[in-house]
Amino acid sequence: MIGLEQIRQISITSPSKIVMLIIDGLGGLPDPKTGKTELETAHTPNLDRLAKNGIGGLVDPVSSGITPGSGPGHLALFGYDPLTFTIGRGVLEVIGIGFELMRDDVAARGNFCTVDEQGLITDRRAGRITTDKSAELCKLLSQIKLEGVELFVLPVKEHRFSFVLRGGGLAAELNDTDPQKTGVAPYPAKYTKIVAKHTADIVNEFINKAKGILARHHPANMILLRGFSKLPHIPSMSEIYKLKPAAIACYPMYKGLARLVGMRVFDVNNGIKEELKVLADCYREHDFFFIHFKETDSAGEDGDFKRKVRAIETVDSALPRLLSLKPEVIIVTGDHSTPALLKGHSWHPVPLLLHSQWCRVDKVEEFSESACALGGLGRFPAVDIMPLAMANALKLTKFGA
Amino acid sequence: MIGLEQIRQISITSPSKIVMLIIDGLGGLPDPKTGKTELETAHTPNLDRLAKNGIGGLVDPVSSGITPGSGPGHLALFGYDPLTFTIGRGVLEVIGIGFELMRDDVAARGNFCTVDEQGLITDRRAGRITTDKSAELCKLLSQIKLEGVELFVLPVKEHRFSFVLRGGGLAAELNDTDPQKTGVAPYPAKYTKIVAKHTADIVNEFINKAKGILARHHPANMILLRGFSKLPHIPSMSEIYKLKPAAIACYPMYKGLARLVGMRVFDVNNGIKEELKVLADCYREHDFFFIHFKETDSAGEDGDFKRKVRAIETVDSALPRLLSLKPEVIIVTGDHSTPALLKGHSWHPVPLLLHSQWCRVDKVEEFSESACALGGLGRFPAVDIMPLAMANALKLTKFGA
Repeated sequence: MIGLEQIRQISITSPSKIVMLIIDGLGGLPDPKTGKTELETAHTPNLDRLAKNGIGGLVDPVSSGITPGSGPGHLALFGYDPLTFTIGRGVLEVIGIGFELMRDDVAARGNFCTVDEQGLITDRRAGRITTDKSAELCKLLSQIKLEGVELFVLPVKEHRFSFVLRGGGLAAELNDTDPQKTGVAPYPAKYTKIVAKHTADIVNEFINKAKGILARHHPANMILLRGFSKLPHIPSMSEIYKLKPAAIACYPMYKGLARLVGMRVFDVNNGIKEELKVLADCYREHDFFFIHFKETDSAGEDGDFKRKVRAIETVDSALPRLLSLKPEVIIVTGDHSTPALLKGHSWHPVPLLLHSQWCRVDKVEEFSESACALGGLGRFPAVDIMPLAMANALKLTKFGA
Repeated sequence: MIGLEQIRQISITSPSKIVMLIIDGLGGLPDPKTGKTELETAHTPNLDRLAKNGIGGLVDPVSSGITPGSGPGHLALFGYDPLTFTIGRGVLEVIGIGFELMRDDVAARGNFCTVDEQGLITDRRAGRITTDKSAELCKLLSQIKLEGVELFVLPVKEHRFSFVLRGGGLAAELNDTDPQKTGVAPYPAKYTKIVAKHTADIVNEFINKAKGILARHHPANMILLRGFSKLPHIPSMSEIYKLKPAAIACYPMYKGLARLVGMRVFDVNNGIKEELKVLADCYREHDFFFIHFKETDSAGEDGDFKRKVRAIETVDSALPRLLSLKPEVIIVTGDHSTPALLKGHSWHPVPLLLHSQWCRVDKVEEFSESACALGGLGRFPAVDIMPLAMANALKLTKFGA
């Protein structure tokens, strides 16, 4: 695989524009009754025309057989090998709620849990307290004072929260305090590298103070922390590709992932139509656009085949606005498959279409899993999408003489 | 990817013959009027028959989206990962003019340039002086004497020349003297590793003497040097594959690249017919034959779609002579694509056909980009071609017990 440094050496700036439209969880599995996937069931005249005039293929987000989370799925789309660039659980959780992490912050995932009189865990999820209750408790824990550091306790969903420490000399090399089972006491935070000794002390002080505050809030009378991590060091897309990238997304997770690779992030709340309006508005200022559409994945996760079909049709009907801008390169694909039949992310390769003047049009006549399986791009890793997009935008010079 | 050492361990000698016919810049893009590429437009009954009785695929010379130069393109065809084995610019330039570099020579690319009275560069290309004028100046500079080393100053084209130092203790870890801009003075040669300190002194002495000689040759009154390099250490094809490889090529660049991997190089000057006559003549003595056909690439670079079509037809009509030798394995492909529409090398995968008794014939009926996209070999990296050829020649034993 070609390295980012090698790409950096051959990338050049030019006026051409690349639009990458990500339909989250796009890939599916056929309904046993019709033999057609969600994408094959949906009426998608615009996507089909684009596929017919472009080139198709199937993309493996991470590796054959591997079901990616949103982090690896998107890093690959942006050209970063998801097996090399990994994002800690704590960081991903806090990115997902839209908190803007700073370079040296330490983040962890938190659970409210239940402990008995001996301090042994009886329920790792504190009876799944409501998100409202959790928010109230997070507010209480946020008032804890720790010398020399700032702290954030942020509600996520039900019993889950994010914990962030900010200050000088913090390190994330800490074990989880969550033993992942009941009948035992939570572990204290222990450093795995000596550099994190001071941080371990701070975290344990926090846990002790939290325990005191929560004593009267049964079943949420204790906390568990895991996935201590810092922002990874990722060279920005402008460094590697010399692009001015923009992210247009509605959900915090995808905005956060885009921010991680140095994109300018536009806040949008009302779905694909508003996203494409923002695209038109910022089109002159940028040359790479990541547009994220979420509803396909949510419907797939809910096992709602028909809703996923409708979500795909929503994207299709919004497409003319994008096409009217005539970007030199259009990529449409997903960050992973989310078949409604599996009610979750899956390992299946994701259909991709690439449209550009130089794409070498293939025989694909429609945008679907089965058509793309016979596409001119064949089957290839998602991390190759960016070099391909750059090449089609004539933004890569020759490698070697 | 399997490593060369692993290949070496399982390769065996046998009487079977492999012919690799490289049609330079073979891959193309469709003419917008006909929807057909150069190869699809050409009348190629012999290649089509070979494809029908063989197996097809699409090859990425270096990596998806990457446009290869001739160096990486050919190293990959010979089975050397072009991201691992890199050839310095200076070495490639001098290989391209047919100069036989020795193991410890240091080579650089040179430009004649123009400097003003203060020694600041006003034209990095000395007004693109003629090749004849350049040859005359190279002759003058060749007469410079440097203690303990031999030197060569060889005209390339217009303002470009090759510079070679030969002698003991030379090293190539030197910065370019070319600042890549005007309005500044050329840099002195500086070593980037201490081992090259002595070489830097010699190069600077050469530059100073050259400056003196060129003072009265405005606009070519100074030189710039870049891409200092030595021959890379590449294990030979006979080491790795236990082959006795022969190269049959008309152009110096390809002869040089073949020499780099230890092939015996045959001098041919008159195109494919003579090449195939030489093939017949040396057929008994060798078991691997690299045959290089250049005109397809030249026509593509010139943007001459029809000439590229005719060049492909020339190869096709010469093919029966090759077929009459009945080599056990025939590979036909290119080192990269050169679509006439792009007037240069491109990133598009290259069609490949493999013909052998054991190839597992697919449904490909003709030799073309679109047919090979649906070929039984799928899309794969060029560095895998050699193991595949070796396997089809029954020259690879089992890997692991």
